[in-house]
Amino acid sequence: MKITHIEHIGIAVKSIEEQLPYYEGVLGLKCYNIETVEDQKVKTAFFKVGQTKIELLEPTDEESTVAKFIEKRGEGVHHIAYATENLNESLEEAESKGIRLIDKQGRPGAEGLSIAFLHPKSTGGVLTELCEHPQ
Amino acid sequence: MKITHIEHIGIAVKSIEEQLPYYEGVLGLKCYNIETVEDQKVKTAFFKVGQTKIELLEPTDEESTVAKFIEKRGEGVHHIAYATENLNESLEEAESKGIRLIDKQGRPGAEGLSIAFLHPKSTGGVLTELCEHPQ
Repeated sequence: MKITHIEHIGIAVKSIEEQLPYYEGVLGLKCYNIETVEDQKVKTAFFKVGQTKIELLEPTDEESTVAKFIEKRGEGVHHIAYATENLNESLEEAESKGIRLIDKQGRPGAEGLSIAFLHPKSTGGVLTELCEHPQ
Repeated sequence: MKITHIEHIGIAVKSIEEQLPYYEGVLGLKCYNIETVEDQKVKTAFFKVGQTKIELLEPTDEESTVAKFIEKRGEGVHHIAYATENLNESLEEAESKGIRLIDKQGRPGAEGLSIAFLHPKSTGGVLTELCEHPQ
């Protein structure tokens, strides 16, 4: 597959508001967008750092996967998202090479991206997202 | 502080060799350097992805901090490293804003960088490295 860059790093937090003093006040990054992804039951905050974004993920419901992640592992890095040129071809290729897919096909994610997840059991413990920018 | 980009993402692995089929064979990234950092008791493998590197960290000793990380949390993302224009000024600024520092001053890291870590208790659970490229 053709990966061009790291699109974003997803970080699970209990409260976006509590993290803003660190990301904005200390690191000097600018939060340019906050949006809620209803079907994932998360509120997301985005910061641009060069080519890559930091995406803070705050659960909006205690049944969301991010809430369960925090309950089990604490706050911290939740996933890495790689930008690929053709998402569905990349998924087919990954599956043909023995990677377990969470999503067999791209689905809509935040910021208009088409996204899919690979299972961390196949990727050395790192929950991995592949994503494609809309043309 | 002035952060320009994400310099690398450090990922703790039990074996670099076992992860190469995923990073090279599936994601299509190229490992361009493997080096051992003696004082950290790790072997590191680097892959370039746009502006950012993936740094795999394999413990060379069961007493290394990376070995303990894997024992406690399993394989996965170990730290995020931000490139900053002036490392020691950035550390002073972070400390003045209440961030707990692991390293009070820059020290030599892999690939000739000057590096320092911030404590994850101050950074929302994310072990965070600041680093400066040699001029």
